Amino acid sequence: MKPVKVGICGLGTVGGGTFNVLKRNAEEIARRAGRGIEVAQIAARSSNPQCDATGTPITDDVFAVADNPEIDIVIELIGGYTVARELVMRAIDNGKHVVTANKALIAVHGNEIFARASEKGVIVAFEASVAGGIPIIKALREGLAGNRINWLAGIINGTGNFILTEMREKGRAFEDVLAEAQALGYAEADPTFDVEGIDAAHKLTILASIAFGIPLQFDKAYTEGITRLTTADVGYAEALGYRIKHLGVARSTAVGIELRVHPTLIPADRLIANVNGVMNAVMVNGDAVGSTLYYGAGAGMEPTASAVVADLVDVTRALTTDPTNRVPHLAFQAEQLSDHPVLPIGECESAYYLRIQAKDHPGVLAQLASILSERGINIESIMQKEAEEHDGLVPVILLTHRVKEQRIDDAIAAFEALDDVVGSVVRIRVEQLN
Amino acid sequence: MKPVKVGICGLGTVGGGTFNVLKRNAEEIARRAGRGIEVAQIAARSSNPQCDATGTPITDDVFAVADNPEIDIVIELIGGYTVARELVMRAIDNGKHVVTANKALIAVHGNEIFARASEKGVIVAFEASVAGGIPIIKALREGLAGNRINWLAGIINGTGNFILTEMREKGRAFEDVLAEAQALGYAEADPTFDVEGIDAAHKLTILASIAFGIPLQFDKAYTEGITRLTTADVGYAEALGYRIKHLGVARSTAVGIELRVHPTLIPADRLIANVNGVMNAVMVNGDAVGSTLYYGAGAGMEPTASAVVADLVDVTRALTTDPTNRVPHLAFQAEQLSDHPVLPIGECESAYYLRIQAKDHPGVLAQLASILSERGINIESIMQKEAEEHDGLVPVILLTHRVKEQRIDDAIAAFEALDDVVGSVVRIRVEQLN
Repeated sequence: MKPVKVGICGLGTVGGGTFNVLKRNAEEIARRAGRGIEVAQIAARSSNPQCDATGTPITDDVFAVADNPEIDIVIELIGGYTVARELVMRAIDNGKHVVTANKALIAVHGNEIFARASEKGVIVAFEASVAGGIPIIKALREGLAGNRINWLAGIINGTGNFILTEMREKGRAFEDVLAEAQALGYAEADPTFDVEGIDAAHKLTILASIAFGIPLQFDKAYTEGITRLTTADVGYAEALGYRIKHLGVARSTAVGIELRVHPTLIPADRLIANVNGVMNAVMVNGDAVGSTLYYGAGAGMEPTASAVVADLVDVTRALTTDPTNRVPHLAFQAEQLSDHPVLPIGECESAYYLRIQAKDHPGVLAQLASILSERGINIESIMQKEAEEHDGLVPVILLTHRVKEQRIDDAIAAFEALDDVVGSVVRIRVEQLN
Repeated sequence: MKPVKVGICGLGTVGGGTFNVLKRNAEEIARRAGRGIEVAQIAARSSNPQCDATGTPITDDVFAVADNPEIDIVIELIGGYTVARELVMRAIDNGKHVVTANKALIAVHGNEIFARASEKGVIVAFEASVAGGIPIIKALREGLAGNRINWLAGIINGTGNFILTEMREKGRAFEDVLAEAQALGYAEADPTFDVEGIDAAHKLTILASIAFGIPLQFDKAYTEGITRLTTADVGYAEALGYRIKHLGVARSTAVGIELRVHPTLIPADRLIANVNGVMNAVMVNGDAVGSTLYYGAGAGMEPTASAVVADLVDVTRALTTDPTNRVPHLAFQAEQLSDHPVLPIGECESAYYLRIQAKDHPGVLAQLASILSERGINIESIMQKEAEEHDGLVPVILLTHRVKEQRIDDAIAAFEALDDVVGSVVRIRVEQLN
């Protein structure tokens, strides 16, 4: 069979990696796919020193690739929402299949993109948009297709995990590690997307849709970053037998879907608590399979290219498939998506780590405990540290049982109204992830 | 679209689980697959109390299912090589697709079965044959299709991992834990397949074929069980910063493929070293993606059923696919499998843990070290323990660098010929799994 012709739009890190992997492993890929995959055109504003594309036609106009009649599959690797969206729509309208690594685009405009793709009978594949080279989209959409998914929880931002790992292992402060991550190139000059959890929320939105068969609803995801985490809390968590990880959590409950990104205490003996540095991991719990975990590099030139190329092989195979019988974009048939609502954070349920800075007076602990008990919140454990020398305040750390978040909000407000409590209460969610 | 009709052959643990999952998640599965999956017939010699199959036609003749003109997909869950092989061949000859959980059948007769299936244009799917509910076959065949796989290493026998976990955590002896595992139903009355590594070798044979695109060659797999492991070695490994796991390891080298099952020291901080109890995990290292890991329940009623049902959904989708354009059985096009040879164990390379029982004489260490150095074997570390009270012998533990196994065989023979060395040298392979 003659080779499939693909066009790479964007020759940055992932684009360069994709070109290199397609070239280096061309023979192996053809032995798998049954036909070659040939880069017929590249659109790039500048060349990439890590990638020798001599001999491949290059344009600076991405739309030229979308309009190129020779090309079967357009690979969108330019990022962002604006030009990328136009490019993908143009490719679809031209009857071309699309492979993209763009989580922001899929999380925000995916519903519209998939609707148009279905109309035109083409595939938009997006394995590379979540967790780099880990084939987590495929695991959820196909590998676990027999399951009703109960929940998933993932370390899906490598920069954030690198920062938390350094804070724990070396006792370094957040700002300090962030500056190093920027110097190493792990974090962007503007690190907001990473450290405020927006990047993770994009990915979680995608994972939740394909896990539960709901439309993409990025605007409903609760997002809390790691910027306010202190080494003190990292240390107290450790003393209690926990690690703090920045997790995306999605859970299906009787009343709706929880969709939340936040720092989370996880028991130290869980595998996912031991995923360190820039690595990613996603746990998925299904009613038949129980808990599973998928681990690997969540970003980088070739790990992400690995996912792009896997999608290219899939699409290559699907070129001769009955379009009504493909794996649906969001795992479930488009007309059978669920309208189960995404819950506001106040309606979500978890256990909590609360740190209260209290004056060293007798009776404080009793006041705190009675505020919780009046609200039906059970205490799992209490740890009271020595008074700190410089201010004479006593850190009191409480772990609660699982409870609806709004009840904890209420308890925190009551804590902060006490004369013996100083400043804001620190609240970090706790998940057992059995 | 009208439902796909499937026949379940064998209503034991996995068969009952498959029936239950198909029934409980029928609506969810149809929302994914675009059509229902209906159990049209069951073949079983007796009923399964964990499974209410009232209303489904039951026969005691598995061949009646293979011959049933109503049935599209035959699910082989009877196990063994003999009747299972006939059943699968009969189903294929009747133009039916097959889903099986039978690792022994695939590892031993897979080449013949896949050849016949390709001739007849049908699929034989076998996700459930390796690592239960973990979608590892799909990850290797599809999710990592852009990679040249360098190596894989897996904990792929839950019984063995349960025994090793108990030995380490509780200091219990092998025989003691095995007896408990049998009482708990984790181990068979005849535990040979589990504890001698045969079950793991079946699974490793399958994984290696789809990783490297080689024919199934179970007879060439090196297989060493866990029956000779002592709590002493488990403890020494721990003191050196390692855990002992029973691994299946497959590695592609310039001269051939390593295919070996044996106890293995792994650095304690690797995720896979922390996979405990009956759980399974497989690491896969690809040239683009780097190291990835897949974790979950490797056996059990519903975890295995999860894999069977995922295969059913895949086959259901493929019913309308061009048969020449499906995912090949062994990941690579049948006519393009590689003849890269499987290496004999003497040609394989790893690092080694050696424990020598030596008389407490001066100069023993120097003799041991010079035997290694004469053979070009570098020492990574040496640990000499106190003389044991009852026999006055000193355990000497050596960790070597990576070297070809036949050189270690030679060094061990030389050790054992020394007057100051008593009994056999204990040899356990060491893998870093970076």
